[in-house]
Amino acid sequence: MAYKLALVSVGTIARTQHIPSIEGSDRFELVAAVSRNAQVEGVPTHVTQAAMLAAHPEVEVVSLCMPPAARFDYAAEAIAAGRHVMMEKPPGATVAECFELRRLADAAGVTIFATWHSREAAQVDAARDWLKDRTLTSLRITWKEDVRHWHPGQEWIWQPGGLGVFDPGINALSILTAILPDPVHVEKAVLEFPANKGTPIAARLSFRHPAGAEVSAVFDWRQTGPQTWDIDVETDAGTLGLSKGGAELRIDGALVETAGDAEYPRLYARMADLIDRGESDTDYGPMIHVADAFALGERRVVAAFED
Amino acid sequence: MAYKLALVSVGTIARTQHIPSIEGSDRFELVAAVSRNAQVEGVPTHVTQAAMLAAHPEVEVVSLCMPPAARFDYAAEAIAAGRHVMMEKPPGATVAECFELRRLADAAGVTIFATWHSREAAQVDAARDWLKDRTLTSLRITWKEDVRHWHPGQEWIWQPGGLGVFDPGINALSILTAILPDPVHVEKAVLEFPANKGTPIAARLSFRHPAGAEVSAVFDWRQTGPQTWDIDVETDAGTLGLSKGGAELRIDGALVETAGDAEYPRLYARMADLIDRGESDTDYGPMIHVADAFALGERRVVAAFED
Repeated sequence: MAYKLALVSVGTIARTQHIPSIEGSDRFELVAAVSRNAQVEGVPTHVTQAAMLAAHPEVEVVSLCMPPAARFDYAAEAIAAGRHVMMEKPPGATVAECFELRRLADAAGVTIFATWHSREAAQVDAARDWLKDRTLTSLRITWKEDVRHWHPGQEWIWQPGGLGVFDPGINALSILTAILPDPVHVEKAVLEFPANKGTPIAARLSFRHPAGAEVSAVFDWRQTGPQTWDIDVETDAGTLGLSKGGAELRIDGALVETAGDAEYPRLYARMADLIDRGESDTDYGPMIHVADAFALGERRVVAAFED
Repeated sequence: MAYKLALVSVGTIARTQHIPSIEGSDRFELVAAVSRNAQVEGVPTHVTQAAMLAAHPEVEVVSLCMPPAARFDYAAEAIAAGRHVMMEKPPGATVAECFELRRLADAAGVTIFATWHSREAAQVDAARDWLKDRTLTSLRITWKEDVRHWHPGQEWIWQPGGLGVFDPGINALSILTAILPDPVHVEKAVLEFPANKGTPIAARLSFRHPAGAEVSAVFDWRQTGPQTWDIDVETDAGTLGLSKGGAELRIDGALVETAGDAEYPRLYARMADLIDRGESDTDYGPMIHVADAFALGERRVVAAFED
C-alpha cells in the first residue's frame, strides 16, 4: 500500500525533483497539491493547505516545498491535522521553530522528516565510511555558484530570513556534518552583504575541530562559468575529494566508481521507512551552524548586486 | 561537606556576585582562582586553568566567568579533567558549542549548569505561577540601559561574537522563556549596528506565539538616566508587570511583596543540588532565540557610537 501524499508549493524544485521522485516510488501516491498559481497535471490542486486538508482526509503525508520563512505555519497546520510531514531544506527560518515542530510532531504521534538532499548524493556515504577510521588534518569546503542561474527572480533569498548564500551553503554543511566523525562548531565567520541586499552573497567560516584539524568553508554566489561544490579533505592516511555536491569521489586523486545520483528518490524512500517505523528524523545541526555563523559573524558590506 | 570550587576569570561579576555568593554558601568552599592579572584574597590564584587543575586535584567544581567567546575551551578542559562546570551567561558564543558541552559533560559523568541569573530574580517564579492558568494576549519586553555605565572599556561586547545589546537582552529572554507557558520563536527582528561596531546597539524582536498573542522585545543600550528592565503582560484575567529585571512585580497595578533579591546565591544553591543528584541543567532556549534573531534579522547601520 502506497502512502497518499500531497505536495505543497509547486515551484521549480517540486517539478524537477519531487514529482518525478514520487511518481517513481511505489511507496507514495500523489493525490493532491497546494499552489496559489500552479497546477499539477492529474491531481486536484487547492489554493490553500487548509482547503486541501479538509477536502482530502485520505492524505496521510504532506511534502513541503515552500521557502523556509513560511514552513512553520504549513508544518504546524499539517501536524495539527494528524498528517506526517516531510520538509525541504532548510527546515525553517529559525532554530527554535524547528525544535518546536519536532515537539509538536512527537505530541501528535506523526512522523516529521527534516530532509537534507545533499546528504543523499551518490558518494556521501562512501566518504563518511572512508573518514571514519582516519585522523583528519584539514577539510576545506568550496561552494561557489551563480545565483543568477540558480535563483532567478527569487526575491525571498535576499530578504532577511532568506539566508542568502547560506541557502546553498547549508547543503555543504549538511554533508560536512554527515561525513565528519567529530563534532565541530563555527569559531569565526565573515559575511559579505551586498549594499542593496538583506542577506549575504558570500561567507567564509572557520570551525573548531576537537583535535585541531583545520576545517573551513567558503561560500560565494558570484561564480560565473564552471560551478564549484567541492569538499577537500586531508587525513593522516590519504586524501579525499568530494565534488559536484557529493556526486563524485576521489581517493588519493583516483576517481571512485558510483551507481549514480538519486538524491530525492532516496529521501522519499527514507520518509516511507520512517513512517513504517513510527519514527522521525530531525537533525538540525546544519541549521544551527548557519544561525551561529550569523550570530558571531563579522559583517562586511560589498558592492551592490543586481540580479 | 562543602564542594571545593575554583573561580575562573576574576572580573567585575566575579567580585560583586560570585565571590560573595560562594562565601555566603555552606555548600561551596572557594579554594583556588584563575586570572591573568587579578588576585583573589586568601586563595591561590593561577595564571592558567590548566595549571590550577594540575595543582588542585581537590577542586571538584569550576565556576566560569570569562566572556562567552572563550567559554568553550575552559569548559571542555575542565570537563576533560573530570570537574563539574558552572557557567555564567551566555553559555557560549555558538549554539553548537553549547550542545557539544552538554554531550561532553554527559559522557564524562560530570554536572554542567548553564546559568541564567535573571531567572533567579525575586519575582520570576511568582510571575510564572500567575501566568500559568491565564490566556496571554500580549507581552512586551523593554530592556534599555546605558552601555557606558554597565560595560566600561569592555571591547569584547562590540566584537563579532560579543552579542552586543543581546548580552543584556538575553537576560530578558531567559525570563521570557521561564515565565511563558507556551513556546515562542522569533518571527521578525531589526538589529541596529553602529557604523563603527561589530555588534548591535539596539534590537527589536517580534515573536510568534501559538495562540497569536503579541510578544515583542525592545533592547537598547543608549539609555541614559533611569534604566528600564521591564516585562509588561496582558492576559484575559488581569495584567502583570515585572520590573527591575524581575525583582519587582505588579499584578493589576498593585505591588506584590517580595523577600528580596538573591540571584547568585540561588544559582549556587541550584548548582550544589544538581551535583548532589548527579544531574545537569542546560536550557539553551535564550541562546537559540539570539542566534535566530541574528539569522533572520534585518541589519540597519546607525550612528557611530563612542564609548
